[in-house]
Amino acid sequence: MFQRRTHQVCVCIVAIFVARLVFADESKPTDPLPSWNDGATKSAITNFVTKVTTDGGKDFIPQSDRIATFDNDGTLWCEQPMYFQMKFAFDRIRAMADKHPEWKDQSPFQAVLANNLVEFGETGQKGLLEVIATTHAGMTVEEFHETVRQWMRTATHPRFHRPYDQLIYRPMHELLIYLRANGFKTFIVSGGGVEFMRPWVPKVYGIPPQQVVGSSGVVKFEMRDGTPVLVKEPKVEFIDDGPGKPVGINRFIGKQPVMAFGNSDGDLEMLQWTTEGQPDLGMPRFGLIVHHTDAEREYAYDRDSKIGRLDKAWDEALKKGWTMVNMKTDWKVIFPPETADRH
Amino acid sequence: MFQRRTHQVCVCIVAIFVARLVFADESKPTDPLPSWNDGATKSAITNFVTKVTTDGGKDFIPQSDRIATFDNDGTLWCEQPMYFQMKFAFDRIRAMADKHPEWKDQSPFQAVLANNLVEFGETGQKGLLEVIATTHAGMTVEEFHETVRQWMRTATHPRFHRPYDQLIYRPMHELLIYLRANGFKTFIVSGGGVEFMRPWVPKVYGIPPQQVVGSSGVVKFEMRDGTPVLVKEPKVEFIDDGPGKPVGINRFIGKQPVMAFGNSDGDLEMLQWTTEGQPDLGMPRFGLIVHHTDAEREYAYDRDSKIGRLDKAWDEALKKGWTMVNMKTDWKVIFPPETADRH
Repeated sequence: MFQRRTHQVCVCIVAIFVARLVFADESKPTDPLPSWNDGATKSAITNFVTKVTTDGGKDFIPQSDRIATFDNDGTLWCEQPMYFQMKFAFDRIRAMADKHPEWKDQSPFQAVLANNLVEFGETGQKGLLEVIATTHAGMTVEEFHETVRQWMRTATHPRFHRPYDQLIYRPMHELLIYLRANGFKTFIVSGGGVEFMRPWVPKVYGIPPQQVVGSSGVVKFEMRDGTPVLVKEPKVEFIDDGPGKPVGINRFIGKQPVMAFGNSDGDLEMLQWTTEGQPDLGMPRFGLIVHHTDAEREYAYDRDSKIGRLDKAWDEALKKGWTMVNMKTDWKVIFPPETADRH
Repeated sequence: MFQRRTHQVCVCIVAIFVARLVFADESKPTDPLPSWNDGATKSAITNFVTKVTTDGGKDFIPQSDRIATFDNDGTLWCEQPMYFQMKFAFDRIRAMADKHPEWKDQSPFQAVLANNLVEFGETGQKGLLEVIATTHAGMTVEEFHETVRQWMRTATHPRFHRPYDQLIYRPMHELLIYLRANGFKTFIVSGGGVEFMRPWVPKVYGIPPQQVVGSSGVVKFEMRDGTPVLVKEPKVEFIDDGPGKPVGINRFIGKQPVMAFGNSDGDLEMLQWTTEGQPDLGMPRFGLIVHHTDAEREYAYDRDSKIGRLDKAWDEALKKGWTMVNMKTDWKVIFPPETADRH
């Protein structure tokens, strides 16, 4: 009797299991954006993607034209309490200070070493460029990539106590994957340095290096002991921010994007270009702004912030009907679950 | 009787047909490079591709690292008797001359209008830059693309009497397709202007605009009557030639190529970078130079040519064992068959 019932139970369990396998897809379609709360924002995204990928529909966009561009700082990952690349530069100054005893009396290094942000801020663009030149040049591109990788393996965010490349926004990461699954090519178009991003972006976002557009310094080709090298020089070449973003898009992608994602005034022109450039193109477009509204789980800032100010672009979003993400209410989670893995 | 024999013949024909379908692949594998004569050059290419794509082999290269870069002028299409982009610029000067009566007494336009290449040559780089600025700037990127498309639809090569975009090398076109079929990403890395290439390259070579690297002028973002536009300015931004090619590869691709294809000294540094850059990368590399040896079917030129000079790169090819294409003996045909189609 016992054996028979066990047998029946087993058959029953197997039957349920098989039924689940067979009917799973029909009864409950997989949500491609599980970290987004249901609502107008999520629907705006999925409705757009559905209409432009529906073969034969009037809004269909062929796969070769499905170009989506994403700002990085504040859109794909956190940018507070300071841009992570700035933190990297400060950490490099500290690491290099042993070999530069003169820095302790020399602006702007003195301010960096004393961790005095107010004093550093007073050195203005000159101070900033000096720190960037010192930490981002005078070495080969490969050597610079190695310092970035090394920093990413060891540095930790002061509030979240996690590696910086784990502070990407999970909902946005899902969005990247969702768009690619729908035939989009996803590009980063960031004010950040392209050589700072390329060492970790492919692993973290699944975006290959040739789809990373960013600011850059001059690079020079040299032969060193018969071996060709590319050397980073202490000279700005291109600022991929504000009006530089559509220029960078044209230079690197050579195509009008149909979707653009940003979070600050630095993304205004990219959003304008994406949603209104080449008006005769005859394709639907989509613009989205991430509004940082969640002081508890991340940060809350907009019109008055020094980092990632959202002022003009907010007004324009309201006027043009771009989709606004309210981080607090639209996102179920902010960051991916913690992991011990370091890239 | 007649009916029966007909029936037998039919059965026989069907049997042969079926046999062909079934055994075709085994008995005679399709040659992916039919325009290349069998021999050392063709084998060098196919042996390299076979070894780096053989899963589990010691020389295997993962798909994300299969980056191949191609020069354009003289490597993918003809560059004689003058660079086609130069011909485009001259034709534009002639088309614009009606509105510029002052040009007939004004250097360098005078020389262009008189078709006097010697006199134009004497105006040097200054004259060249003036012609480029006049014909390549002062309009939006889209307007410039349209003038290129228009020219490509109407202009004809003086010797071959064919549209310029039909003067691509058929063997190299096959090579592009063969490499892509083997998981390579094919990039153009040309001294020519990126905006001159992008309007026709995708259709002609099957290479998307974001995989076209070239020289460029400064582009500026502007709002015109509320519509965002990108305007080409009369200022050189980047020369993607000689030592500029590895710099362009780094800037746009962000990855070490494993195959590079060129034809002149302007490709030397790209070939050096591709075959010897980052020596610890642990991946096989491949360099190839197209040597123009066929005055009858195309042109024969090398060490003394003003256009596409092949001198230092030839010496280096011999020293480094790069593959040399002898156009006359390695290529069965040069250009694709003539067609009435214009893009």
